[in-house]
Amino acid sequence: MTRSLKGFGGRQGLSPGTLASSGELEPEATRISLLCWNEGGYDSREGLEPGAIAANDPAWPVRWLRVRGFADLAAVESICTGFGIHPLRMEDALNSHDRPKSEIDDSSVFVSCHSVIPGSGDAAEYRHLALFLKPGMLVSLEEGDTPLFDAVVERMKRSGSRLRRFEADYLLYALMDAVVDGYFATLERMADRIGELEADIFEGDGSGILERIHGLRNEMLMFRRCVWPMRELVANLTRAGDSVFSSGTAPYLRDLYDHSIQVIETSGTLNEMLSSMLDTYLSSTSNRMNEVMKVLTIIATIFMPLTFLAGIYGMNFEHMPELGKTWAYPAVLAAMVAIGFGMALWFKRRGWL
Amino acid sequence: MTRSLKGFGGRQGLSPGTLASSGELEPEATRISLLCWNEGGYDSREGLEPGAIAANDPAWPVRWLRVRGFADLAAVESICTGFGIHPLRMEDALNSHDRPKSEIDDSSVFVSCHSVIPGSGDAAEYRHLALFLKPGMLVSLEEGDTPLFDAVVERMKRSGSRLRRFEADYLLYALMDAVVDGYFATLERMADRIGELEADIFEGDGSGILERIHGLRNEMLMFRRCVWPMRELVANLTRAGDSVFSSGTAPYLRDLYDHSIQVIETSGTLNEMLSSMLDTYLSSTSNRMNEVMKVLTIIATIFMPLTFLAGIYGMNFEHMPELGKTWAYPAVLAAMVAIGFGMALWFKRRGWL
Amino acid sequence: MTRSLKGFGGRQGLSPGTLASSGELEPEATRISLLCWNEGGYDSREGLEPGAIAANDPAWPVRWLRVRGFADLAAVESICTGFGIHPLRMEDALNSHDRPKSEIDDSSVFVSCHSVIPGSGDAAEYRHLALFLKPGMLVSLEEGDTPLFDAVVERMKRSGSRLRRFEADYLLYALMDAVVDGYFATLERMADRIGELEADIFEGDGSGILERIHGLRNEMLMFRRCVWPMRELVANLTRAGDSVFSSGTAPYLRDLYDHSIQVIETSGTLNEMLSSMLDTYLSSTSNRMNEVMKVLTIIATIFMPLTFLAGIYGMNFEHMPELGKTWAYPAVLAAMVAIGFGMALWFKRRGWL
Amino acid sequence: MTRSLKGFGGRQGLSPGTLASSGELEPEATRISLLCWNEGGYDSREGLEPGAIAANDPAWPVRWLRVRGFADLAAVESICTGFGIHPLRMEDALNSHDRPKSEIDDSSVFVSCHSVIPGSGDAAEYRHLALFLKPGMLVSLEEGDTPLFDAVVERMKRSGSRLRRFEADYLLYALMDAVVDGYFATLERMADRIGELEADIFEGDGSGILERIHGLRNEMLMFRRCVWPMRELVANLTRAGDSVFSSGTAPYLRDLYDHSIQVIETSGTLNEMLSSMLDTYLSSTSNRMNEVMKVLTIIATIFMPLTFLAGIYGMNFEHMPELGKTWAYPAVLAAMVAIGFGMALWFKRRGWL
Amino acid sequence: MTRSLKGFGGRQGLSPGTLASSGELEPEATRISLLCWNEGGYDSREGLEPGAIAANDPAWPVRWLRVRGFADLAAVESICTGFGIHPLRMEDALNSHDRPKSEIDDSSVFVSCHSVIPGSGDAAEYRHLALFLKPGMLVSLEEGDTPLFDAVVERMKRSGSRLRRFEADYLLYALMDAVVDGYFATLERMADRIGELEADIFEGDGSGILERIHGLRNEMLMFRRCVWPMRELVANLTRAGDSVFSSGTAPYLRDLYDHSIQVIETSGTLNEMLSSMLDTYLSSTSNRMNEVMKVLTIIATIFMPLTFLAGIYGMNFEHMPELGKTWAYPAVLAAMVAIGFGMALWFKRRGWL
Repeated sequence: MTRSLKGFGGRQGLSPGTLASSGELEPEATRISLLCWNEGGYDSREGLEPGAIAANDPAWPVRWLRVRGFADLAAVESICTGFGIHPLRMEDALNSHDRPKSEIDDSSVFVSCHSVIPGSGDAAEYRHLALFLKPGMLVSLEEGDTPLFDAVVERMKRSGSRLRRFEADYLLYALMDAVVDGYFATLERMADRIGELEADIFEGDGSGILERIHGLRNEMLMFRRCVWPMRELVANLTRAGDSVFSSGTAPYLRDLYDHSIQVIETSGTLNEMLSSMLDTYLSSTSNRMNEVMKVLTIIATIFMPLTFLAGIYGMNFEHMPELGKTWAYPAVLAAMVAIGFGMALWFKRRGWL
Repeated sequence: MTRSLKGFGGRQGLSPGTLASSGELEPEATRISLLCWNEGGYDSREGLEPGAIAANDPAWPVRWLRVRGFADLAAVESICTGFGIHPLRMEDALNSHDRPKSEIDDSSVFVSCHSVIPGSGDAAEYRHLALFLKPGMLVSLEEGDTPLFDAVVERMKRSGSRLRRFEADYLLYALMDAVVDGYFATLERMADRIGELEADIFEGDGSGILERIHGLRNEMLMFRRCVWPMRELVANLTRAGDSVFSSGTAPYLRDLYDHSIQVIETSGTLNEMLSSMLDTYLSSTSNRMNEVMKVLTIIATIFMPLTFLAGIYGMNFEHMPELGKTWAYPAVLAAMVAIGFGMALWFKRRGWL
Repeated sequence: MTRSLKGFGGRQGLSPGTLASSGELEPEATRISLLCWNEGGYDSREGLEPGAIAANDPAWPVRWLRVRGFADLAAVESICTGFGIHPLRMEDALNSHDRPKSEIDDSSVFVSCHSVIPGSGDAAEYRHLALFLKPGMLVSLEEGDTPLFDAVVERMKRSGSRLRRFEADYLLYALMDAVVDGYFATLERMADRIGELEADIFEGDGSGILERIHGLRNEMLMFRRCVWPMRELVANLTRAGDSVFSSGTAPYLRDLYDHSIQVIETSGTLNEMLSSMLDTYLSSTSNRMNEVMKVLTIIATIFMPLTFLAGIYGMNFEHMPELGKTWAYPAVLAAMVAIGFGMALWFKRRGWL
Repeated sequence: MTRSLKGFGGRQGLSPGTLASSGELEPEATRISLLCWNEGGYDSREGLEPGAIAANDPAWPVRWLRVRGFADLAAVESICTGFGIHPLRMEDALNSHDRPKSEIDDSSVFVSCHSVIPGSGDAAEYRHLALFLKPGMLVSLEEGDTPLFDAVVERMKRSGSRLRRFEADYLLYALMDAVVDGYFATLERMADRIGELEADIFEGDGSGILERIHGLRNEMLMFRRCVWPMRELVANLTRAGDSVFSSGTAPYLRDLYDHSIQVIETSGTLNEMLSSMLDTYLSSTSNRMNEVMKVLTIIATIFMPLTFLAGIYGMNFEHMPELGKTWAYPAVLAAMVAIGFGMALWFKRRGWL
Repeated sequence: MTRSLKGFGGRQGLSPGTLASSGELEPEATRISLLCWNEGGYDSREGLEPGAIAANDPAWPVRWLRVRGFADLAAVESICTGFGIHPLRMEDALNSHDRPKSEIDDSSVFVSCHSVIPGSGDAAEYRHLALFLKPGMLVSLEEGDTPLFDAVVERMKRSGSRLRRFEADYLLYALMDAVVDGYFATLERMADRIGELEADIFEGDGSGILERIHGLRNEMLMFRRCVWPMRELVANLTRAGDSVFSSGTAPYLRDLYDHSIQVIETSGTLNEMLSSMLDTYLSSTSNRMNEVMKVLTIIATIFMPLTFLAGIYGMNFEHMPELGKTWAYPAVLAAMVAIGFGMALWFKRRGWL
């Protein structure tokens, strides 16, 4: 996870507002597509050139310009400039370590956040995302392809869906809602992994538990860092006022706010469960050590006196009268058995057996 | 407990406001019943059809429509639509993982929370619950049957009870009060279980203590997640103003608010007791290990020198003058006893015996 | 301590405002007494009947009605109703688990809190207490006899005391001040017990320390639960305004507020001292274990090689040339002594001896 | 440290405002001195009688009345009454456990706090202190002599110093500044002691470390209790307004406020360092235990099999063909050496040696 | 690190506002340089005398006066006085332990903070820094040379850069931005070191891990002490209003504010990762101890009974019938092998092997 923290310090000495993709991976190739719709129809064009997009188009009251992948910085910059996005906002949009935030003007909204999906392996996949809303237009700058948005595109294709009837502000909500649903899915995957860990701890399959708890805690830290500012971000949108969000969209934003809080609280609960699990694991480890110590102590406590007894009659003194008696050997053996059983009884009484 | 966290991520890709029961168990069959009363009388009808309920009925100033079980989603939706409940509220009502909340309009109140009862076994039973208050009418959407409401129904049947004299807003209070009383009962059951755990820790019956503490902590986390938002929820109601709650109901709401805070504080206290108990358990485990170590050390420290002594006189050198003396064997035995007692005395002085 | 948490859930299904004494012990017999005074004189009547108390009495400008013990619920209710106390307040007054609170009307003040005294044994004694102030009259509902009030009664008997010159609002202050002084006394007793614990930990008398720390922490939790809401309670009184508290009493209330904060902060300090003490105890336990382990290791490390050497010369091979030499036995003994001292020196150098 | 918490509960049953010195030590003898100055000159009179001090003196625009030691309660009370100090403030001034506070009237300021100096031994010395400011006059009630004020007196004697040019409000600031400088000196002494502890932990001189950490934590708790309320206290002064503090003194008060925050933050940092140190100490203890265990295990693991081998050839069976062979003894010795070295190699590979 | 805390208490007894360099190192030689620029050109003069700098210069609308090194206190004081800096601000500027703060007047801004760079070794290098902004002029008082400012100077030399076009308020922003970029670089270096620690913990190279974790935690504490007040400091600047910051600079300040919060949150995340790492290290230590104990127990449990058996047949009783049988010796050896394998199997079943 520390890997994911790298790169956030790489801007030293650059002039503020200088564009530079700061993701830790190679930037993906830039793909530009435009989705337009009204209540009656839907159109989608892929592989556009930055210059080919008009500022507005009377045929389509709502348009969504998706820019995916930041390899072609010049194209991204030309689009941002074309839609009047402030250089500092562009910098935020391209900086994949940027803290989630929302900024609201008289007529435009800028949102920067991370989409998180459970990922193919254990670790969740983080993608940075910036949304820029102007009347009639939504520009999304996506670090890579965002699978969470596929369902939104599907709904858009269905005639009669709410997305078709509402304005671009509802599209912004729908995309944010998809992002927050991705958080829930990630949390659920984590809850599953925590549940598996819990089972492994109590069933005693101890190998690698420590690494897994440590890994989950670090993932949780990373996740919370992305999710924590969402509350403020969405609260900001909720307070934006009529000039940006229509009264029809407002209750949906409040719902989104409730969901953000629920994500934060659930992640807090999972975090506390992880802490509790570490405590429990440590205790069970120490319990197991206790058990090992008991076995050692029982063996030592039984055999040390017996070996000592055998040692006594192994001494070579000439005058050891017992040695000559016929009954001595069986008597000593009997004494040894008696001592052994006595010890075992004593341990039983102490609750060690 | 992680089981109870499952299912909260299952809405991915659904359009917001789409009805889907998201409880982890099979939804219960839908039962619709209507309770009507005025100061003079009381009527109750079971097994109604969704279409059969008029929006208001001049004969009964106060009516309570109970919808129990969400198996028949179409019926639930038709009732909700009939009483003008917003689709997002419907979604909240059916989502059993929804965070408790209250929303207040000019003339209606929506409350979504969880009823908790101690349950037949150890674990508490959680049921999701939504209450919708309009003038003269209260609609309750209950995930399953809510035993906590039986006492309210009983009080309603008694003529002269306050429930008969007050409006529907007092009924809302009475139901919330029953829910909060259920929280107290659950806390009391937990306090009992904590007390039993405490006794078992100090009486040394250590088997499974760790699992029990861990389980209680997770249950507590779950409980606090349900209870924590109640403070805000009830505070919201308290601030609702005259248009919704009559001045007669207001002091009862303040009382409810005090009880919510008491639930939260008591659960906090129990939580700290559990933490303190885990510390204590770990300490007592480590104390017991200490005791085991002492026994081992005492045994080893006494018998190792003695066995060594026996070993010396078991050597086969030809010239060992002591071996030939008659007094040598008793002398060595006496020395061994002396060494053993000396050691025991030394341990006594160190406080190990 | 969990015992003290019992009973708080026992009101399930009761109509709000229903009187029921919910203390965990048998309610004490109800005693009603009336204390009246003015600047010139003082009068006290014991064993009154509920009906015998007039709402006001021109002869005495200030009167204090003490109701001690809640066995006779009917008498308590009749008094409360006579002085116009709201049923929910009555319920609060009788519920010994009620959270401390104050409610202020235009002309009356209701205070519900717990008096705590160090108690005869170790555990502090908690008594629930409700005070109801009307112009010229203070009604106190005490769960049992409150020894803290004896000093107030004594001061009242002294002519010229401030209590005689001031109004009933000053009496309310004086009683609250006595309650807060009781908190200080309890804290001081706890500080003493913490000091004794500390001494026992460092002097190594380890028996039962864990139980004592655990017990103190639980008592502290209980105490803090009673004391924590006092800050808000007294702040409420401070803000009450002129209609209830005269300007002469106001500075005394601010002083009471400062004392409440000091109680809370001191209890916080003692709590942190207890946590620190548990850490220290655990460390000292683990240090002692370390010491035990060292003794074991030293003994084993010295005697195992020596016993092995003795074992070698105890073997029965026919061709062991050393066995026949006269100097062999003393030489082996000397080697053993040398090995033993060498080991001891090595431990000395490692700092284990 | 618990010693220092004693005495705070000793006022039970006393009428509020009753004067009683509540320090834990014998009160010091009361010394009264008066320092007067104007821009041109300076005068100081020692050993005054309470009655000999006029309320104001036209010759000296600024006067400082120092009352040191509270043995003569009557004299202290007469001075307080003479300058119109409220009885509750007098009580605060004499109660050495009083929580630091400031109270501001139209024309007077009352400050109660603790001066702390590093002290001759390890423990810091606490002295309670009350300052009462009226126009042209500052009364200081000091539990004992306050060495921190010597430098202020020195600066006062220097003509041209800011103290000479400013009013009494600047003197109040100068004394508070001296008190806060004393906090810094105490913190620095503590930082030194923490540094020494740190060195001792890593150099392994483990004796008494636990007691020292525990002691430092308790001292820190005590220190923070005195220092924590200073933020609010000084913020209070900062907000006091023009009637009390001149515009020339205001920036100095803001500076004092910054210093108070720095004291609190630094003490917080030291506190966290202490916690971190305890963790580190516990870990190093457990590491050392680990090392001890390893030595034990290595010795036992090497010698137990060898001793067993020697035991086998020490058996007295008549038919043990090996015993008769000439090469048997050296062969067994060689085998023993081989086993020993094999074990050692195995430990080397596991990283135990 | 405690070393870095030294010196903060050294001002005791000094009059407030007295200049004294309080860094822990020897103060660096004072170098004074002046950088002037307008849109068209750029000029820089090194090695100036304090008296040679005019209060303003019509040729250059923006000038930056750098004072590096505080060895020549008189020169520093003369410059400060020349530009009207309050004595208390001068004191803050020279006190390298001063808490970061910003103070805003009608027309001037004072900022005091620390620049942090990763440093040549592991430990970060802290330099105190004060910035004083007047219209057309920025004075920087730097404890030593600040390498972070080199990039700003470079940008200044490039014609057409934003620095050239904006006023002195933008320069203040640019310098603060460079300082915050240095925080990011320091955090990244720490994240690297944490990553290395993590790898070493799981790969088991345990030497010195404790010291390294402890060291990192203390560095983190130090870093957070410097960084924590930055949020408030920058928020202050953001609220400063139009009289100080032009509308063009305002969005850059908000960006700076976001970056400050990100620094604080990232340092918080790293801190939690360190705590989690300590837990993990302790657990892995205790796991390793567990493993050591298991080896010891296995060895002891296998060889103690075998040695006891050998001891029995080493006894010298005359009547031990087994000793004479030819098959006895191989039988005993076979029994020993059987016992050994039986034990090993038992351990296998318990999961110890």
